[in-house]
Amino acid sequence: MSAIPETKTLILEESDGWLTIWFNRPEARNALSQELTAEFRAVLSAVRDNRSIRGITVRGKGGIFCAGGDLKGFRSNYQGGAQGIADVAASSRDGGEMFDQINEMPQVVVMLVEGAAMAGGLGMVCTADVVAVTSDAKFAMTETTLGIPPAQIAPFVVQRLGLSTARRLMLTAARFDGTEAGKLGLADFVVEDAAGLEAVEADVKKQVMRCAPGANAVTKEIVLATRHLDRPAMLDFAAQGFARCMLSDEGKEGIASFLEKRKPVWAGRG
Amino acid sequence: MSAIPETKTLILEESDGWLTIWFNRPEARNALSQELTAEFRAVLSAVRDNRSIRGITVRGKGGIFCAGGDLKGFRSNYQGGAQGIADVAASSRDGGEMFDQINEMPQVVVMLVEGAAMAGGLGMVCTADVVAVTSDAKFAMTETTLGIPPAQIAPFVVQRLGLSTARRLMLTAARFDGTEAGKLGLADFVVEDAAGLEAVEADVKKQVMRCAPGANAVTKEIVLATRHLDRPAMLDFAAQGFARCMLSDEGKEGIASFLEKRKPVWAGRG
Amino acid sequence: MSAIPETKTLILEESDGWLTIWFNRPEARNALSQELTAEFRAVLSAVRDNRSIRGITVRGKGGIFCAGGDLKGFRSNYQGGAQGIADVAASSRDGGEMFDQINEMPQVVVMLVEGAAMAGGLGMVCTADVVAVTSDAKFAMTETTLGIPPAQIAPFVVQRLGLSTARRLMLTAARFDGTEAGKLGLADFVVEDAAGLEAVEADVKKQVMRCAPGANAVTKEIVLATRHLDRPAMLDFAAQGFARCMLSDEGKEGIASFLEKRKPVWAGRG
Repeated sequence: MSAIPETKTLILEESDGWLTIWFNRPEARNALSQELTAEFRAVLSAVRDNRSIRGITVRGKGGIFCAGGDLKGFRSNYQGGAQGIADVAASSRDGGEMFDQINEMPQVVVMLVEGAAMAGGLGMVCTADVVAVTSDAKFAMTETTLGIPPAQIAPFVVQRLGLSTARRLMLTAARFDGTEAGKLGLADFVVEDAAGLEAVEADVKKQVMRCAPGANAVTKEIVLATRHLDRPAMLDFAAQGFARCMLSDEGKEGIASFLEKRKPVWAGRG
Repeated sequence: MSAIPETKTLILEESDGWLTIWFNRPEARNALSQELTAEFRAVLSAVRDNRSIRGITVRGKGGIFCAGGDLKGFRSNYQGGAQGIADVAASSRDGGEMFDQINEMPQVVVMLVEGAAMAGGLGMVCTADVVAVTSDAKFAMTETTLGIPPAQIAPFVVQRLGLSTARRLMLTAARFDGTEAGKLGLADFVVEDAAGLEAVEADVKKQVMRCAPGANAVTKEIVLATRHLDRPAMLDFAAQGFARCMLSDEGKEGIASFLEKRKPVWAGRG
Repeated sequence: MSAIPETKTLILEESDGWLTIWFNRPEARNALSQELTAEFRAVLSAVRDNRSIRGITVRGKGGIFCAGGDLKGFRSNYQGGAQGIADVAASSRDGGEMFDQINEMPQVVVMLVEGAAMAGGLGMVCTADVVAVTSDAKFAMTETTLGIPPAQIAPFVVQRLGLSTARRLMLTAARFDGTEAGKLGLADFVVEDAAGLEAVEADVKKQVMRCAPGANAVTKEIVLATRHLDRPAMLDFAAQGFARCMLSDEGKEGIASFLEKRKPVWAGRG
């Protein structure tokens, strides 16, 4: 397992099997600069295979989650022409791979949103397993008001909101608040303030600690595989994942503890 | 058409073109033992092509729907090693095929949930056309608290709840009640008690009796085909199904009754 | 760009970059006759590449949206046999292509529903980007009560309502009102009356006018592509669409206006 790298644009906190990643560019409303996304991806890579880290919380310093992509960076970097198109496309594709990476982390990913999650920040939220927002948080996919499409986030927004809500919000750049986010399915939990977000997080941590880390990782693989495997392949993939867990140390401990009516003990494997 | 087999773990009731299947292992909280699932699949196979049976209700004796898989059976049967993996995988795959079978029944499938529907029992609920639950019924996907993944149920849970809610509930093993099940889309109807469940069932029966049984069977094929056919194939499949029904005796009776402003008469074909 | 054709069964109104298409067969509850669907498709084709038309509203004259397919037409045209099946299938397939066409229009499509949207009319609603309904509007997929399946609309109903709600409503022909349509996700906005529908439309127009027309068209391509592209292809498709927009006149204007803190000016291209 890799060591967690040093970061400038992120603040990392680790305790009790949980990693918290703070976006820490409040002066830029935590916009996803190249440096920030590179650091974010490096941190994710470093903890990916670490089963002693059971969950990851993502949130933003300065009372805001994330304002989206870093438009200043875009203008300064690209000059047009065929090479310009290729450069911008490559950068966009990198962004999409970052969303895949967070979406597919084996750990439980919780996002706590206060202030605002706009454009790419809203797309980021859609990759989480659990989303809690404050009722007054602001949301919008503002991309097309800037002449650009919400592109790499589209699959993740569709994944969480369904195609119809996704297209409506994208094509109107409608602004909405946390309460509406709850109704639309963007948020699983709507609370009043940061303390409320942390109360949700505490509940989720407690729940996740009861779940076997290896089984959770396999579960996430299986549930995400439903997106693309055909039916016979899915039957086999699910069967293999189930059998592997059932006969693992975790599975034996789980079934034994159930039959013996005691709590299981999960050994987070480092 | 096959005769409906005798069953030990199920109680079967048939009247007025409707089959009710009761899980009847209340001493084991109606857990899905090998015997129960074999009997369940045999009953489904026997009625599958019987258009005089217009709908199927699934519910549980003893005030509980279903507690999920039969973990005692698992421990006694499997010993590990490569052969153990293959055995468990084969058994898991069988479970997935059972969920496919109920999901794809040509008849309307109604599930009435009181007490609890846990793990595989919750997955079962997701294969129904209509779900009614009591507000105090209990739900959870508890698999990973036992060191195993909710594997074969995953596609059906995603089908009913969407990917984001599915993964959250699977990875946290969160417990929730019938009222919450209504908000999450697991239940179409939330009622107070068993009498309420039966009132929903009576309404649905009345509705279904107005629908042509052959057209309903073709409709279910078409709507399920949207999951996997590409667009040109879907256009053709829908067109063929439509034309076949339109020019069938049912279609002629349906259009004639509409134009003559009278009720159609549907001949359930045996 | 083609001229918008003359129409008999539709009333067309164009102003301020917005086209309103009224179904105008109130004597037949705006049923989708062959003439109406041919005219509708011709109008859509004529405006498809016209970026100066930013949005399209679809609604019905006579206080009703649309009663569905034209059953009288069906009975008079088809006589059964192999040729009959082929004829009906071809006609059904045409219907499916019409739904594709409206679903994939590059402009923002708003549907305003009062009175009723039944069967194919309900399917039509599911192809919109924005749906507003009056609380007392009536909805049902009544097809199987006529011996025929809701066939070509199935993918669009699943797209908007999800598979589980779609199959329940199709197999029971359940009737429901606008308030319920809001809860089920069929409607984005539920209002009291026609004035309420027009207030929603006015808000949406204002929002859409702030969005770049070219970027909106690319966005719709991208979000619809999530339905069928595999992950690597989707990453590339999104990246190309993003880069093309970013380096277009619209993208340059959008980023410049953002950095200069002024409103962008979108040149609707004719």
